Amino acid sequence: MADGLKLGLAGIGTVGSGLLRLIEARRNTLASRAGRPVEVVAVSARNKRKKRDVDLSRVRFVQTRVKLATDPEIDVFVELIGGEAGVAKEAVEAALRAGKHVVTANKALLAHHGASLPALAEKHGAALNFEAAVAGGIPVVKVIREGLQGNDISRVYGILNGTCNYILTLMEQEGRGFADVLKEAQAQGYAEADPTFDIGGFDTAHKLALLTSLAFGTRTSFDAVYVEGIETITPADIEAADDLGYRIKLLGVALRTDSGIEQRVHPTMVPKDTAIAEVDGVSNCVAIDGDFVGDVMLIGPGAGGGPTASAVMSDIIDIARGHVLPAFGIKAKDLKPYKKAQMRAHEGGYYIRLSVHDRTGAFAAIAQRMAEQKISIESIVQRRPRSSVGDARAAVVLVTHQTTEAAVRKALAAIERDGHVDAKPQMIRIEKL
Amino acid sequence: MADGLKLGLAGIGTVGSGLLRLIEARRNTLASRAGRPVEVVAVSARNKRKKRDVDLSRVRFVQTRVKLATDPEIDVFVELIGGEAGVAKEAVEAALRAGKHVVTANKALLAHHGASLPALAEKHGAALNFEAAVAGGIPVVKVIREGLQGNDISRVYGILNGTCNYILTLMEQEGRGFADVLKEAQAQGYAEADPTFDIGGFDTAHKLALLTSLAFGTRTSFDAVYVEGIETITPADIEAADDLGYRIKLLGVALRTDSGIEQRVHPTMVPKDTAIAEVDGVSNCVAIDGDFVGDVMLIGPGAGGGPTASAVMSDIIDIARGHVLPAFGIKAKDLKPYKKAQMRAHEGGYYIRLSVHDRTGAFAAIAQRMAEQKISIESIVQRRPRSSVGDARAAVVLVTHQTTEAAVRKALAAIERDGHVDAKPQMIRIEKL
Repeated sequence: MADGLKLGLAGIGTVGSGLLRLIEARRNTLASRAGRPVEVVAVSARNKRKKRDVDLSRVRFVQTRVKLATDPEIDVFVELIGGEAGVAKEAVEAALRAGKHVVTANKALLAHHGASLPALAEKHGAALNFEAAVAGGIPVVKVIREGLQGNDISRVYGILNGTCNYILTLMEQEGRGFADVLKEAQAQGYAEADPTFDIGGFDTAHKLALLTSLAFGTRTSFDAVYVEGIETITPADIEAADDLGYRIKLLGVALRTDSGIEQRVHPTMVPKDTAIAEVDGVSNCVAIDGDFVGDVMLIGPGAGGGPTASAVMSDIIDIARGHVLPAFGIKAKDLKPYKKAQMRAHEGGYYIRLSVHDRTGAFAAIAQRMAEQKISIESIVQRRPRSSVGDARAAVVLVTHQTTEAAVRKALAAIERDGHVDAKPQMIRIEKL
Repeated sequence: MADGLKLGLAGIGTVGSGLLRLIEARRNTLASRAGRPVEVVAVSARNKRKKRDVDLSRVRFVQTRVKLATDPEIDVFVELIGGEAGVAKEAVEAALRAGKHVVTANKALLAHHGASLPALAEKHGAALNFEAAVAGGIPVVKVIREGLQGNDISRVYGILNGTCNYILTLMEQEGRGFADVLKEAQAQGYAEADPTFDIGGFDTAHKLALLTSLAFGTRTSFDAVYVEGIETITPADIEAADDLGYRIKLLGVALRTDSGIEQRVHPTMVPKDTAIAEVDGVSNCVAIDGDFVGDVMLIGPGAGGGPTASAVMSDIIDIARGHVLPAFGIKAKDLKPYKKAQMRAHEGGYYIRLSVHDRTGAFAAIAQRMAEQKISIESIVQRRPRSSVGDARAAVVLVTHQTTEAAVRKALAAIERDGHVDAKPQMIRIEKL
């Protein structure tokens, strides 16, 4: 049997501990599957003495994580530090320059440096694998990079943040308000003390930027992602969605259009009788529309020590098997420039909820504003929310046929100016599935 | 750029034509993704002169498919002939012996020769890739063989036959009977003239046998698969399932138990509020339960020229990239013997529908027979089918708590002997998801 593959592990939090446990539990099967033993020979962490539930007595502790990255004994640097800059970036760059393979779960790092890091890896003949960075345990990087390579992909989208999906699921199932459910999610450890990064859609945007490069072979362009979070979703929206045959999910969507590629993160109406509507709680999913294969969807755990360790291990076994590919499947120099499709040009159906305070003439005026923008209305209902949580006022709920974002924004701005509504209009995009 | 990868293609039906179109359409991107050009240099088919919608003027036609398999010019033999024996087997063996890589969509061949063919491939340093043989376009072979290798898998299951799923979906959505819907499926080309292989569950069993080997690292044992088809499912069952919160799907399930591995194919009740229940029409899905990753599910097109060509192409690109693995992920000699768990020992919940012709005392007698086998009943209802299709008699529908197959069979045999029912009892297993 070939020599063992020697890992240096930086970061021993939930995922790092999960990985150590996995390697310990699977010692023999891993050797059989990988064709050679896999072992952690050195670790590093910010705090050496922190109490951990894994036995580190038999591995060498390296004082700094950057030093570990270039440790002469290691073949693979496993980066579980996190963050788009600082130590993580410094360590990954050092490792690649030293010709060490890198396995990372760091979506922020790759979303921000998706051009330079793959190029650096290729220059030094090293792998830069990041299965764990997108959708946790779901092997979607491998599926796009290898399993669907015969296809031209037209769209990739998914539920990429478990915190948001957990909150939306609870709001729906228990008819509760956003703030209330967020508090519970925080108490249960499903949401951070500062939840902005998750609920604001930024975590989803990081992952989407990576999926975009994988699916379309374009340079990563995180700054071009349009981002809306779930903070404005109310029980009234969730109930109206239910009545209309939809559920609300925070989706990240990358879509090829004639004018470029849309990258957008926003609450989205998905039909109730689809598999994606059944992706509940902290689960994630990713769907890929390919020209030959059709639509493929993957569902699974989006975070947590076990699932993420599973993904990291898959990357490590690939390296052990000598299977090293460019980070995004094609050489960094072959990645095309990202051409952004403007959000105003986005086409789709829209759900609009208006809080109309004076009904005499208001309906007619609203319909008039829509007509001016050539927006055709599929349905319009006045409804009073079933629950008493959130804004319990009567609302007018409109669903539009296919139209453009620009038209909807103009119409809503005019309606607001007309003074017929007493709150900012709610607008939720409907995704065709 | 490296030399082109030269393919010999045997079989130019739907999938073969799809593959030729894909390679033609993707010439440049494939070269970029695979790191080298990919080209079909020779083909063979039973009938050379048959009219086809692809241009074969620029490829060499080899007289016999077995001759093509060892053609000196080809690197990869793509077997799209089909069948567990005969030409397909002969050609694949010849190709492997000549050190040619083999890519095949032939599930029957591998299900029956899953021990000898991988060993032959390894002996000659050749790949034996079969992504297209299981669940069409869904890259599930890669996901298990590579993406989830860190896991011990406890169960793999799925909807593996599009014909059955199409028929069950139509029966449910339109309240129609099995024979009626089958006829329509045949007219539309979704079912064969002789549909036994699909609706009897045998196609599913072939695919399941391959999934079992991939997931558990055991030698393929197709003969050990317990098989029931969908022929006995009636509108009454589908309606009762709906009332109980279930849908009926033909599942293939491989489950690790203390006494061995269950491999079973049968109509199955799945809860309506799950993603698998939303897998409609000709779609397939595969779910994998791993200890570290948790539950992962893949959904997509299970058949057809485009999806299958996509899967075949993924296998070809792996070879072009120099990525060659043992067929089932570990060396043939390391595959463990398959230890069969007896179907009688299967544990689960059961749906039972009885056609009770004489109600006086019958309920009590039925309950007594269940109690004798220590089967505890979760619910019991007498119902009259909504539709008038099929058997329109009143029926007693029981749902049991967790029990064993042996107990249920004994109880049902006793109930039949007692003479309280005027038709063979219907029994459908409930799968815990």
